[in-house]
Amino acid sequence: MFEIIAFDADDTLWKNEDNYLDVLHKLQHILSRFASPADVETILNEAEHRNVPYYGYGIKSYILSCLETAVIATKDQLTSKETRKILDLGKYMVDVEVELLDHVQEAIETLSSKYALMLLTKGDLLDQERKLARSGLAPHFQYIEIVSGKQPENYAAILKRYQIEPSRFLMIGNSLRSDILPVIAIGGQAVHIPHASTWVHERVDPSEAAHHDYHELASIQMLPAWLEEYKHHRH
Amino acid sequence: MFEIIAFDADDTLWKNEDNYLDVLHKLQHILSRFASPADVETILNEAEHRNVPYYGYGIKSYILSCLETAVIATKDQLTSKETRKILDLGKYMVDVEVELLDHVQEAIETLSSKYALMLLTKGDLLDQERKLARSGLAPHFQYIEIVSGKQPENYAAILKRYQIEPSRFLMIGNSLRSDILPVIAIGGQAVHIPHASTWVHERVDPSEAAHHDYHELASIQMLPAWLEEYKHHRH
Repeated sequence: MFEIIAFDADDTLWKNEDNYLDVLHKLQHILSRFASPADVETILNEAEHRNVPYYGYGIKSYILSCLETAVIATKDQLTSKETRKILDLGKYMVDVEVELLDHVQEAIETLSSKYALMLLTKGDLLDQERKLARSGLAPHFQYIEIVSGKQPENYAAILKRYQIEPSRFLMIGNSLRSDILPVIAIGGQAVHIPHASTWVHERVDPSEAAHHDYHELASIQMLPAWLEEYKHHRH
Repeated sequence: MFEIIAFDADDTLWKNEDNYLDVLHKLQHILSRFASPADVETILNEAEHRNVPYYGYGIKSYILSCLETAVIATKDQLTSKETRKILDLGKYMVDVEVELLDHVQEAIETLSSKYALMLLTKGDLLDQERKLARSGLAPHFQYIEIVSGKQPENYAAILKRYQIEPSRFLMIGNSLRSDILPVIAIGGQAVHIPHASTWVHERVDPSEAAHHDYHELASIQMLPAWLEEYKHHRH
């Protein structure tokens, strides 16, 4: 069976994308004199796409992209007070409460008594450590890995460090692009648990995923029973 | 002898603080219509002090503090073009070449053939991974640890994870506050190698350090010989 069960965090264990969308709506409001909501969203998506290689993921990167969006959307008419408002959105995001998704608490508690669990999340070190601390879930995770990217080589490096055969590694997450396909690519197992909001940069063409052998569950609530069944099926 | 020799990175292996000072000077220039260089520096130091708990260390955090400084120093008269210029400073910092300090290349090469070396650095995950990759030093480090803080508990957690007795752990770094005192506090050994530029938030009152038992070397060049001598002295 699995030596380690690893969980993505954002939108797998707790709400995340909704907080980013909330700030997008606030930015659209701040910039409404200058640009339509749709235009602000388009400019922001482009800014994030340009900036991920420079700044990676997380709140600070997002706020820098919001500011870049603002100077572009206003055609260099952004006022100092508007700049201040956008800067304040960063602290607002840091202060947001962590809200666990439905059934996460019970599922993680149940599984942590039987398996070694790993939190394996991409993003900003401080953001992710803070969310884990606020989530109350930290005691259930034996291993914490915060990585700058979730490419197959990132997963391979972690498996090597923990000396785990890929076939004995199970990854659970909401993003096909980050949590499922790269794990399948290195010979691991993966369970996809979709979430209603998925960041545009995490989406994959369904045809790209269709040929791969991964599992899909509607809710984390079903994971303990699925693991029991998987175990009996294998033996 | 030591099981692991851990090195701080910024201003221990490569130049860092100078890049931040360079950007401070550019910010002072951008804001020169509104505030004196000394005032800009004071406001920036205060902004960084306020923002570290929110944003941690690294380029993104610094640029957000520069922007906050700008709206304060201009009394909300910052123009959109100036905001854009400050945003551009972030990408300028990301693109700066990594410049190894004198004798680092030889010292690390020599030591890596005899000891297990760890890079143990505080800061932004992506910033530090990028600098390590550009430095060319990555193959010499057996372990990489990028942490959000360097308090005694951060060091204790790493020693626990690697199952190392504190007395067999040696930390090398330029910051008394981050690299030396917390390591001494948990019973480890530490060698301080001062650097000409030290960030104001890393400075400690000399009297605070005077009573502690750590070693000081003027250059990393002296480290291999110091280790040989230490070994013979101990046996």
